[in-house]
Amino acid sequence: MNDREMSCNSGGQFMDRGRMNQNGVVQPLLTDLYQITMAYAYWKSGKTDDQAVFDLFFRNNPFHGEFTIFAGLEECLKFLDSFHYSQSDIEYLRQTLPEGIENEFFEYLGNLTAHDVTLYAIDEGTVAFPRVPIIKLEGPLIIVQLLETTLLTLVNYASLMATNAARYRMVAGKHVKLLEFGLRRAQGPDGGLSASKYSYTGGFDGTSNVLAGKLFNIPVKGTHAHAYITSFSSVGELKTRLLKHKQTGIMEDLLEHAIRHRQMLSHVLDVSTEESSEGELAAMVSYAIAFPDGFMALVDTSGLLNFSAVALALNDLGYHALGIRIDSGDLAYLSCLAREAFEKVAERFKVPWFNKLTIVASNDINEDTILSLNEQGHKIDCFGIGTHLVTCQRQPALGCVYKLVEINGQARIKLSQDVEKVTMPGNKNAYRLYSADGHALIDLLQKDSEHPPAVGQKVLCRHPFQESKRAYVIPSHVESLYKVYWKAGKICQHLPTLEQVREKVQISLKTLRNDHKRTLNPTPYKVAVSDNLYNFIHDLWLQNAPIGELS
Amino acid sequence: MNDREMSCNSGGQFMDRGRMNQNGVVQPLLTDLYQITMAYAYWKSGKTDDQAVFDLFFRNNPFHGEFTIFAGLEECLKFLDSFHYSQSDIEYLRQTLPEGIENEFFEYLGNLTAHDVTLYAIDEGTVAFPRVPIIKLEGPLIIVQLLETTLLTLVNYASLMATNAARYRMVAGKHVKLLEFGLRRAQGPDGGLSASKYSYTGGFDGTSNVLAGKLFNIPVKGTHAHAYITSFSSVGELKTRLLKHKQTGIMEDLLEHAIRHRQMLSHVLDVSTEESSEGELAAMVSYAIAFPDGFMALVDTSGLLNFSAVALALNDLGYHALGIRIDSGDLAYLSCLAREAFEKVAERFKVPWFNKLTIVASNDINEDTILSLNEQGHKIDCFGIGTHLVTCQRQPALGCVYKLVEINGQARIKLSQDVEKVTMPGNKNAYRLYSADGHALIDLLQKDSEHPPAVGQKVLCRHPFQESKRAYVIPSHVESLYKVYWKAGKICQHLPTLEQVREKVQISLKTLRNDHKRTLNPTPYKVAVSDNLYNFIHDLWLQNAPIGELS
Repeated sequence: MNDREMSCNSGGQFMDRGRMNQNGVVQPLLTDLYQITMAYAYWKSGKTDDQAVFDLFFRNNPFHGEFTIFAGLEECLKFLDSFHYSQSDIEYLRQTLPEGIENEFFEYLGNLTAHDVTLYAIDEGTVAFPRVPIIKLEGPLIIVQLLETTLLTLVNYASLMATNAARYRMVAGKHVKLLEFGLRRAQGPDGGLSASKYSYTGGFDGTSNVLAGKLFNIPVKGTHAHAYITSFSSVGELKTRLLKHKQTGIMEDLLEHAIRHRQMLSHVLDVSTEESSEGELAAMVSYAIAFPDGFMALVDTSGLLNFSAVALALNDLGYHALGIRIDSGDLAYLSCLAREAFEKVAERFKVPWFNKLTIVASNDINEDTILSLNEQGHKIDCFGIGTHLVTCQRQPALGCVYKLVEINGQARIKLSQDVEKVTMPGNKNAYRLYSADGHALIDLLQKDSEHPPAVGQKVLCRHPFQESKRAYVIPSHVESLYKVYWKAGKICQHLPTLEQVREKVQISLKTLRNDHKRTLNPTPYKVAVSDNLYNFIHDLWLQNAPIGELS
Repeated sequence: MNDREMSCNSGGQFMDRGRMNQNGVVQPLLTDLYQITMAYAYWKSGKTDDQAVFDLFFRNNPFHGEFTIFAGLEECLKFLDSFHYSQSDIEYLRQTLPEGIENEFFEYLGNLTAHDVTLYAIDEGTVAFPRVPIIKLEGPLIIVQLLETTLLTLVNYASLMATNAARYRMVAGKHVKLLEFGLRRAQGPDGGLSASKYSYTGGFDGTSNVLAGKLFNIPVKGTHAHAYITSFSSVGELKTRLLKHKQTGIMEDLLEHAIRHRQMLSHVLDVSTEESSEGELAAMVSYAIAFPDGFMALVDTSGLLNFSAVALALNDLGYHALGIRIDSGDLAYLSCLAREAFEKVAERFKVPWFNKLTIVASNDINEDTILSLNEQGHKIDCFGIGTHLVTCQRQPALGCVYKLVEINGQARIKLSQDVEKVTMPGNKNAYRLYSADGHALIDLLQKDSEHPPAVGQKVLCRHPFQESKRAYVIPSHVESLYKVYWKAGKICQHLPTLEQVREKVQISLKTLRNDHKRTLNPTPYKVAVSDNLYNFIHDLWLQNAPIGELS
C-alpha cells in the first residue's frame, strides 16, 4: 500500500499527515542526541551490517490500574515511512557532533531510510500489559537504534491518554457523554492535539479543540464562556430581540416572551426575578437568537430562572433548547436542583421535552470526582473534562522503554539488581489465551522458534522470575498478538480509521474480566512465559551473572 | 518592525517561525469551539464594534512556590501576527457550526486579523505573581475573545516549564549543569519541543532533544544508552582497536592499552577484573575510538574499572576522557565512590585531570531528589532530568485564565462565592515597587487613570478583599510592568533572543528576596491594589451583588 492509499483510507487524517510532512514535526531529528552519537560509534566500529531486535514495552500499568490501551501505532508507521534526514538536518549534525567525524558517516546518514526494518505490533486500540512488547522491531542495528526516542515519544503519551480516557469512560458509564476540554492546559499546541485525538480513541465523544476536529474528524462541541454573560449588563443593550418563528416564519420579540415566562417561572421555581441578573437575561436572549436550535447556556444557581424563561420563549417560537452547563459549585446538588426545576417546568408548562434537557458539568473533574458524583446521585448527562484528563494527573507519563533483545541472532539480556528491570531476551512471540466465555486469561511470551499454543491443549505458563509460580492453561481460543505492520519499506496492513481504533478499544476492554478493570484494587492480569523461554532466560542470566555477587 | 526583522533578531528562531507558519500548528483553529460560537452570537447581536479589555492571569503559583516565571510571549506575538482563518478553516467551520449561520459571518471571519488589537505584557522571563495580569489585551470584543484559548495554551505550559526549570536550577545551585532529557515522556512531539525550549529559558544548560537544538539553537548533549553496551558481548567482536595518537599521529591498539591498565587498576580500585564484563570493555573501547576527545560512558558500579582503564588508555594516546553517567542505584553513594576512584587513579597514575572527570546522574530525578542528594553529600557535576521535569510532576498545569474586565469603557466584575475567583475589574496598570537594596517589595495594581506611584513618596497598598490589610510603602524604585508589545498590526518591541530571556529569568529572580524563593514554606510575595482601585472594586461589587444573598 503506498502513502496516498493509506492517507485516503484514514479520511480526515490526510491533513494530519500533511501537517507531519510539511511542517516536519515528526522528523528523525526529534530524538535524543545519544542515538546519533551511538549511530556514529556503531558505524565506526563496523557494525553497519549487524542485525538487531528491539522490544518496546512498559513495566507498569498507569493510574494504579491493571491494563493499558496501546495507541500511537499509526503515527509510528508514518514516521517510519517518512524517515529521512534532510540536507539541513545533516548540516546541523555536522555542526553539532564533535569534530573529526568522517564525511562518509554523514553520507551514510543522508542515505538512511527505514526500508530494511520490520515492525511487528499489537493492534492499535488493544489492551496491553506490562512486559509484553507492544512493538517489536527487527533490522539493521543502527537504524533500529535511531528510531528509539521518536517511537517512545509517539507511543508513550498516546497510550497514556487513551488509557486515561478509557478509565473515565468506564467510571462514567456508557450513557453519559464525555467531552475533552483540555487544550489550554496541555503541553503546548501539539500536546493539546494529541490529547484530543487519543481521548477520542479511548472513548470520549468529542472535544472542544476545533483544530483537532478539523485534522482528525472528531466531533467538536462548545457553548459559551462566562465572558459572554459579562459582556451584557442590561436588556437595554440588546440590539435585536427578534427571532423568526420556526414554523410560521413571523418575526417575534424573544425578549418579550422570555420576560413574560420569567414572571410565571419565578413562582414555579420559587426564585424572585430580582435575584436574577438582567445582563444574564440579555446574554441568554442574544445567544438563543444566534443558536435557536442549539441553545445551551452556562448557568449558575440563579441562572436557572433566566435559562428556563428563554427556553420557554424559544418553545413559543417552535424551537427546543438543548440544556445547560454548570461550571462551579456542588455539581451533584446543582444537577439535581436543575433536573427538578426542569421537571417542574415540564409539568406546569406542558413541555415534556423539558425533562430531557441536557445537563453538562465541567468544573475540575477527574476519575474520583465522577465516582463520588455517582455515589451521591447526580443528574449530569455530559462531563466536560480538561486539566486532569490531558495532564493525566495521577501519572503524567507512561514509562515505555526500548530494549535490545537480540543481535546477529544472539539473544541479549539486560541484568539488574532490580528484577523488574531484567529484560526478556531474544526474539519472541506473544499470544493471548482466552477462556470459553471469551475472556482473556493470560498473555504468554514464547521464543519465536516455538509452536504457538494450541486450542484445547494444556500449556505450561510460568512466571518469568519465580520458579514456583506456574500453571497449566487450556485455551479455548488463542490470539497471536503480533502482526507485521511495516516491512520492505511498506505499510503491510490496512490501517483502521480513528473511529475503528476507538471501537477496537471498547471491544478489547470487553474481553477483560471486570475484576481486572475495577478502580479499587483491581486483580493483576497475568503475563507468563513458556517453559522453554523460562529456561532460556535463566540459562542466559546465569551465563551473564557477574562473579562475586549473589544474583 | 516587520516579521522578517523579528525573525532575524531571534536567530535560531527563524526556523521555529517557519515551523509555525508552514505547518500551521499555531493557527487560529487551535481553539475551543465556544470561542467561535460566541463570536457568532456577538456578531449576530451587533457587537462587532464593542471594545473590550481582557486580562490574562493566574490565581496561584505552581509547585507550592511563591513565584512564577512568565514565558511564551514571543509565541503569542507570532500568533497575533499570523492570525488569519484560511479558506479551508472557513470551509471546516461552515460544515461544523449549526445550519442557518449567515454567509456574511463567514466573510467577516475570513477578513479578521489581530491588527486592531493592542497587547500589553510583562517582559518574558520576568517573575510574576497571582492576580497581576501578565498580558492585557484591548480591542474589538470578538477578536480579543477569539484569541483566548490559543494564548492560554501558549502561555500556560511555557510558564509552568520555565518556572519548574528555574526551581531545579535554584536547588541544584549555580555550578551544577542541568540537562533536559524528557522528550520521550512529554505530551507528544511538540510537548517535547516546548519542554526543551522553556527548560532552557528557566535555567537549564541544554537538552538531549536534537530538533530542539536545531530549531532554538540550544546546546544538545548525550552519550550512549545501555543498548550500546549490550550490543557487544566480547572483545573479540571489536572490528577495530586502533586509534591515532593525538600528537604523534601513530596508530596504536587502544584495547591493548586498556587491558594493561585494567590489570593495574584492579588492585588500585580493589575490583577483580573478572567482575567486569568483557562486552562492556569492548563497547567502551569502541566508543572511545569514535569519540576520543568526548569519551563519556554509562557505567554501573562494576563499570568504573573498565571506564578507568579505557580513560587511561586514551590518556596514553594523548586524549582526555570526559566522564561517566550513572543511571541507577544510590546516586549519592555511587557518585562519591566514583569520585574517590577517580582521585585514587589521579594520584597513582599521575593524571591530575582524572580528579576533574564529570559525573552525570540521570535516574528519575526531581526537585526533592536533588535536595536529598545535597543533604547526603554527592559528587555529581551534572543532572540529566526527564520525566519529572517535562511533566511538571508536582503540578502538571498552570491555571492561567482570561477574563473580560471592561467593555465599551465600562468595567466588568465577575463575582463568585469563592472570593479567590472574583476578578479585578477595569483597565489597570501594574507596578513593581522596590526597596533601596534592589529587592521587589510588592506589586501594585491601579486603575489605568491613576498616576504611577512616585519614588520616595508613600503609597497606600491594600489587600484587594480584606479591608484591614493595608500598609504604606515608600518605593526606592518603581517599575512599570507593562509594555505595549503589539499595536496596529505590528510587534512594537525589540524581541529578546532565547539567550536574553534566559538571562532575564536569573536577573529577575535575583530581585526576589530569598524567603520568597525557598522550597519549604516560602513567604508569599504581596500583591496589592491602590486605595482608588480598592474602592472601585467594592463599589462595583455592591452594585452587582444579587438581592437576597449575604455576599
